[in-house]
Amino acid sequence: MFVSFEGIDGCGKSTQAARLADHLRAAGREVVLTREPGGSPGAEEIRRLLVEGAGERWSPETESLLFTAARRDHLERTIRPALQAGKVVVSDRFADSTRVYQGAARGDLRPLVDRLHQLMIGVEPDLTFVIEIDPATALARGNARGGTEDRFESFGLGFQQRLAQGFHALAREYPDRVRLIDGSGSADQVAARIRDAL
Amino acid sequence: MFVSFEGIDGCGKSTQAARLADHLRAAGREVVLTREPGGSPGAEEIRRLLVEGAGERWSPETESLLFTAARRDHLERTIRPALQAGKVVVSDRFADSTRVYQGAARGDLRPLVDRLHQLMIGVEPDLTFVIEIDPATALARGNARGGTEDRFESFGLGFQQRLAQGFHALAREYPDRVRLIDGSGSADQVAARIRDAL
Ligand SMILES: Nc1ncnc2c1ncn2[C@@H]1O[C@H](COP(=O)(O)OP(=O)(O)OP(=O)(O)O)[C@@H](O)[C@H]1O
Ligand SMILES: Nc1ncnc2c1ncn2[C@@H]1O[C@H](COP(=O)(O)OP(=O)(O)OP(=O)(O)O)[C@@H](O)[C@H]1O
Ligand SMILES: [Mg+2]
Ligand SMILES: [Mg+2]
Repeated sequence: MFVSFEGIDGCGKSTQAARLADHLRAAGREVVLTREPGGSPGAEEIRRLLVEGAGERWSPETESLLFTAARRDHLERTIRPALQAGKVVVSDRFADSTRVYQGAARGDLRPLVDRLHQLMIGVEPDLTFVIEIDPATALARGNARGGTEDRFESFGLGFQQRLAQGFHALAREYPDRVRLIDGSGSADQVAARIRDAL
Repeated sequence: MFVSFEGIDGCGKSTQAARLADHLRAAGREVVLTREPGGSPGAEEIRRLLVEGAGERWSPETESLLFTAARRDHLERTIRPALQAGKVVVSDRFADSTRVYQGAARGDLRPLVDRLHQLMIGVEPDLTFVIEIDPATALARGNARGGTEDRFESFGLGFQQRLAQGFHALAREYPDRVRLIDGSGSADQVAARIRDAL
């Protein structure tokens, strides 16, 4: 089983992916907890090019290619081997993030993102949790966390609002795969909602 | 005008690209001399991921995506602006290298390379010089040069021989654009052959 977590920056993906991994391990499953961009040594190197530095460092097109390169490496070297060994893969972001971020950055890029996905990736998770939260709250959490991985936060609140709409719309586009999760309240409350949905 | 130099590792591309740029400048043209992978600040960062490290660092598919990302950045930020300003662009490698290296590494990857090129690049040089030289001589030159940029040399002589065949075949595939140049003899002799072909 391959599960992904999606949502805007700071919505609680990493927190909830780790909690779900703990929950599944406690239930006796072997779990690989991973993330994007990254999740394999090569993809983590590409991650640094993507999440640090100035917003205009890459055009949306070059960015799509770099995300797809990182995802291809992650898929080949981490996700596929784990699934073939019968493990559960829990990934903090996957291809939906590219669909939504590119769509939010430049609406007309979605067809290009789809063709790249079809050509080079072709795989979807079995189940995707989209954690929904007020963009202003999420941005404040992300900014409070500090660090240098703030390239996408630097696009500002309007960008995060377009992202939130894009993630919400995924549930209609992929009704069998995507579950919307209310991300308000404590981490415990959100974790309980995710376990219920599972 | 957009001119590229192609050929196996160590055949003399960088030497001859610089000489042609000097020759055109002496004739009064404004010239941008550039190279791949690289040629723009972002693409030079991607270059480091591609030309250093172990051969199996990336699969041929991930490698194709990284080359295409670097080329897209190079095209947007260096090549297109220079051509629009009426300058001559002389590039040490361009898309033919990806066609031939991927084809040499894994014959069945050429269709994928072509689709990526069509989707994300779509541009060809006006004129391409393929410098032809004995692969063993070229490999000895490259190994003598030292440095850390030896990832492709590390694939060995058989790989360089398949590359040489692949570059040779480009002249039949693109007869209007690609000129084969005898790369034997001194750098002066090779430069004279290139000026004659121009
Ligand atoms: N339910 C919650 N209530 C309050 N704070 C939370 C909650 N869930 C997570 N946080 C905190 O909010 C911050 C962002 O959470 P987290 O890192 O899990 O989000 P994320 O979606 O992974 O963010 P990013 O996209 O930037 O990686 C962290 O400091 C985390 O401890
Ligand atoms: N005609 C020549 N005769 C002898 N040595 C040469 C000649 N042309 C170039 N060289 C030397 O051979 C080496 C490789 O040449 P060059 O760097 O131009 O090749 P290249 O095709 O750019 O190689 P790479 O693909 O590794 O970048 C250099 O040390 C260069 O000085
Ligand atoms: Mg996170
Ligand atoms: Mg060179």
